[in-house]
Amino acid sequence: MKKITLIYSGGSDSFTLLHHALNQNFIVDCITFNYGQKHVKEIDFAISVCKELNLKHTLIDIGDPSAIFGSSSLVDRDNKIPYGSYKEDSMKSTIVPNRNMIFISYAIAYSIANKINEVWYGAHAGDHFIYPDCRPEFLQSMDVAAGLCDPSEVSVKGPFINFNKGQIFKIGIDLGVDYSKTWTCYEGQESACGKCGSCVERLEAFADNNTSDPINYK
Amino acid sequence: MKKITLIYSGGSDSFTLLHHALNQNFIVDCITFNYGQKHVKEIDFAISVCKELNLKHTLIDIGDPSAIFGSSSLVDRDNKIPYGSYKEDSMKSTIVPNRNMIFISYAIAYSIANKINEVWYGAHAGDHFIYPDCRPEFLQSMDVAAGLCDPSEVSVKGPFINFNKGQIFKIGIDLGVDYSKTWTCYEGQESACGKCGSCVERLEAFADNNTSDPINYK
Repeated sequence: MKKITLIYSGGSDSFTLLHHALNQNFIVDCITFNYGQKHVKEIDFAISVCKELNLKHTLIDIGDPSAIFGSSSLVDRDNKIPYGSYKEDSMKSTIVPNRNMIFISYAIAYSIANKINEVWYGAHAGDHFIYPDCRPEFLQSMDVAAGLCDPSEVSVKGPFINFNKGQIFKIGIDLGVDYSKTWTCYEGQESACGKCGSCVERLEAFADNNTSDPINYK
Repeated sequence: MKKITLIYSGGSDSFTLLHHALNQNFIVDCITFNYGQKHVKEIDFAISVCKELNLKHTLIDIGDPSAIFGSSSLVDRDNKIPYGSYKEDSMKSTIVPNRNMIFISYAIAYSIANKINEVWYGAHAGDHFIYPDCRPEFLQSMDVAAGLCDPSEVSVKGPFINFNKGQIFKIGIDLGVDYSKTWTCYEGQESACGKCGSCVERLEAFADNNTSDPINYK
């Protein structure tokens, strides 16, 4: 059976991608990153899902985020998470500079060390407007770099890169996955806020599928 | 004056590149990585040089190396550093999987957060045989990825990519730099071993320039 390394945040997209891969009989090793995100509780969701599914899970702490990422609202405690949809310019404060390249680089290193030939990550079309590192041309450039960085062969894949969140959730719903096992809200408090870009997009994705979200909102 | 981010290990190549950049009047911010290398003392050399030159320096700890890099002899305490020249196959154990992509990814993130448009790293022609992530085609692929990862413009440059170590040392010697302020030996003990690939190449580079190394060997 073929093995892959999955960049798994604990959120709903990579959770769906995980089940999509398992459903195709891939053996999945998961990597989660602590990058100082305010919604650090997503990591607990990732750990608990991997434990339940008996998957190998690696948590990587990528160092002092203020030294690297500056004032992104996702990591800087002085910079509030904006409310609204991803289509709004205000959401640009949630960009964490070059986050995905760092994640993919580690996942490639892990794959080489563990003789795995594919890295998967859950970028999708809803991210394209705001996040350049979720676009197909970026994914393609990382796949080229992955093929040149080491004597072993590793490729980088984003199976959901052209899907919107509604289409991703359709895959998960068809597979019967339980979205209460995911964390989406950028604020990372007791209950989801329902107002940040991430919550808004999640709620729209459930609505697109004529179903409701199993989690509680504030 | 133009600002660059330099990946500075504390070794002789990036030390020369630092002085090469300063000599061209660049403002240089330096980043050094602790990746579990046995020759961790190179970091002390980097810190002390940056302090002396009054440069901004950031040390990044990239997490548990055994979880990421497997059994590379540069990080695994059970795997001995091989002796000999880089032209020998045995030196392949010193490959740290995807190390340079991880370093470059962080340096790009740092550059974006600090409004710097260029990342420099000290890969050179002597590294090409053993290390794919020091070859021009890899550098080129990372430069493409850097241009796609964020709305800001960042490029990745390796000014020494086609120079051998002798040519690099000629630049440093012509600039009058003091190579006793660098650490090269992979073993990272009290004195340099003089036998690992890194020491052998350094000694050859001094010999190529008809001069001798100011540091002590075992």
